[in-house]
Amino acid sequence: MKLATLKDGSRDGQLVVVSRDLTQAHHATGIAGTMQHLLDDWNFISPQLEDLYATLNDGKARHAFAFDPRQCTAPLPRAFQWVDGSAYLNHVELVRKARGAEVPASFYEDPLMYQGGSDDFLGPTDDAVFASTDWGIDFESEVAVVTGDVPMGTSPDSALDSVRLLMLVNDWSLRNLIPAELAKGFGFLQAKPATAFGPVAVTPDELRDAWQGGRVHLTLESRWNGRSVGRTEAGPEMSFHFGQLIAHVARTRRLRAGSIVGSGTVSNKDWSRGYSCIAEKRAIETIESGAPKTEFMRYGDRIRIEMKGTDGTSVFGAIDQRVAPLQT
Amino acid sequence: MKLATLKDGSRDGQLVVVSRDLTQAHHATGIAGTMQHLLDDWNFISPQLEDLYATLNDGKARHAFAFDPRQCTAPLPRAFQWVDGSAYLNHVELVRKARGAEVPASFYEDPLMYQGGSDDFLGPTDDAVFASTDWGIDFESEVAVVTGDVPMGTSPDSALDSVRLLMLVNDWSLRNLIPAELAKGFGFLQAKPATAFGPVAVTPDELRDAWQGGRVHLTLESRWNGRSVGRTEAGPEMSFHFGQLIAHVARTRRLRAGSIVGSGTVSNKDWSRGYSCIAEKRAIETIESGAPKTEFMRYGDRIRIEMKGTDGTSVFGAIDQRVAPLQT
Repeated sequence: MKLATLKDGSRDGQLVVVSRDLTQAHHATGIAGTMQHLLDDWNFISPQLEDLYATLNDGKARHAFAFDPRQCTAPLPRAFQWVDGSAYLNHVELVRKARGAEVPASFYEDPLMYQGGSDDFLGPTDDAVFASTDWGIDFESEVAVVTGDVPMGTSPDSALDSVRLLMLVNDWSLRNLIPAELAKGFGFLQAKPATAFGPVAVTPDELRDAWQGGRVHLTLESRWNGRSVGRTEAGPEMSFHFGQLIAHVARTRRLRAGSIVGSGTVSNKDWSRGYSCIAEKRAIETIESGAPKTEFMRYGDRIRIEMKGTDGTSVFGAIDQRVAPLQT
Repeated sequence: MKLATLKDGSRDGQLVVVSRDLTQAHHATGIAGTMQHLLDDWNFISPQLEDLYATLNDGKARHAFAFDPRQCTAPLPRAFQWVDGSAYLNHVELVRKARGAEVPASFYEDPLMYQGGSDDFLGPTDDAVFASTDWGIDFESEVAVVTGDVPMGTSPDSALDSVRLLMLVNDWSLRNLIPAELAKGFGFLQAKPATAFGPVAVTPDELRDAWQGGRVHLTLESRWNGRSVGRTEAGPEMSFHFGQLIAHVARTRRLRAGSIVGSGTVSNKDWSRGYSCIAEKRAIETIESGAPKTEFMRYGDRIRIEMKGTDGTSVFGAIDQRVAPLQT
């Protein structure tokens, strides 16, 4: 099942079911008004939406209309939790190697994750607004899951059963604010502005065999100003699968329905696959030639992030955002 | 105006207006179903609730009933954002001094804050459940504000205008998990389990002169197993006021209605006032005698946190929680 949320002037938008090929949509009116409503009562509501989804895919939904990702908010325009992992250790290794630091041994057993802000997500084609380009504006192409309720102390395997939906993420980062902020010791705050999500959230069965072992075995493409800069494989090099990430958070607390858990920047050891964030390209340049060459993003730059299924069709639709100055 | 949320089996509970003396309550039915609903549309809804509040205080509300804090969830049982400051620098100084570390000069100009989990808050009398007492279970007595919408790049003064409500907080902390977690560099996750809130959220006008310069000038009492261990002053030594904390978060992003911003552990230079968290008592013991003596909390321990107004009545009602083992 594929789902999206349309802008309707309200804070939570309006839930719609989207056809598998992303061409048609149908309001979920009468079944569930919002994505959070669905997640709050998944077992009761989702079968009804699955029926509507089947009808829509068969071309038999009476009030179907053309699906337009530009009308979408994030699938959850605001959420009660957003935690993001850094599950591709190759990314951590590269960034550390570039600044001459070691990766602590514990990083290979204990996931690195941070608690993000979730009150104000960006839709897939919303401008990403920043007051300064001096902050080191960078995209981060990722995948994420949305969970149901997760009990405290859950195991990684059980945690996987709580995965309700998958999404595409652009975890905007302000690279030049990170060193000072992390040096304070309490994690990210200003360095992680509003996160953007792909237009469509999908149930894991939509990925068929590509959803395996708690990982998404598909290629994630990042196009920066129209140029393909990364075609990274999201599956095999994800050092911790989503069940492990969820269980890490659940060690000392419950997770409640609608929690979003991200993978972190998708990264591969094979540099020829390109990059899912500029910081990694700069790390590679530093390792190769002593200094970074690629600049961070400027106003007017565009970033397009998309993931195609084994059949070649877009799974989530595309994130396609422009970097814009703050209007005051 | 005083407001609370009652347990009704739903995830967001039921909004009620509470009389100033905390004896009576009245459902907000027909005006707003939930606290978030109120915050989403504050300017339209709050005047209607203020009318009901006046009627309730006059003893003329026809369907008033006895207010019972044990029936309360947190005022927001789940929220879209919870960020907590460490705005009492005395606390930071003590904890650092105990481990022989300096406070960086920047800490006096740039607030220390962390992004917390907000999907699962505890009510004022809910058990605080932990799987192990080896984790170093500690309370943290704080105050917090709930904001309306805050634009990106707001000034500290403007940020103060966005304060809608004040609340009492118990920011549970797992002290023995903190060093390893912070060493990883991405901030708190497992070391900050579900946070608890006092039964009643109040509008700033309820504090009269005690709400001044973005600070709450009242005494915060912490009673551990019935013994008063702290009577700390929340006002004068708050190094950054709430407008500064909000503006710090808003530097690179908007805050959306219902964001909760905490003060951090209330702490005074005068040690005779006691402590608002055990870690601080242990820091003082370490400074005085080379080692901590006071142990962290055990199963069955109780913590009661309350703040009285200048008239001697409880402002928010009391947080009164028991530490309990995880039942598996």
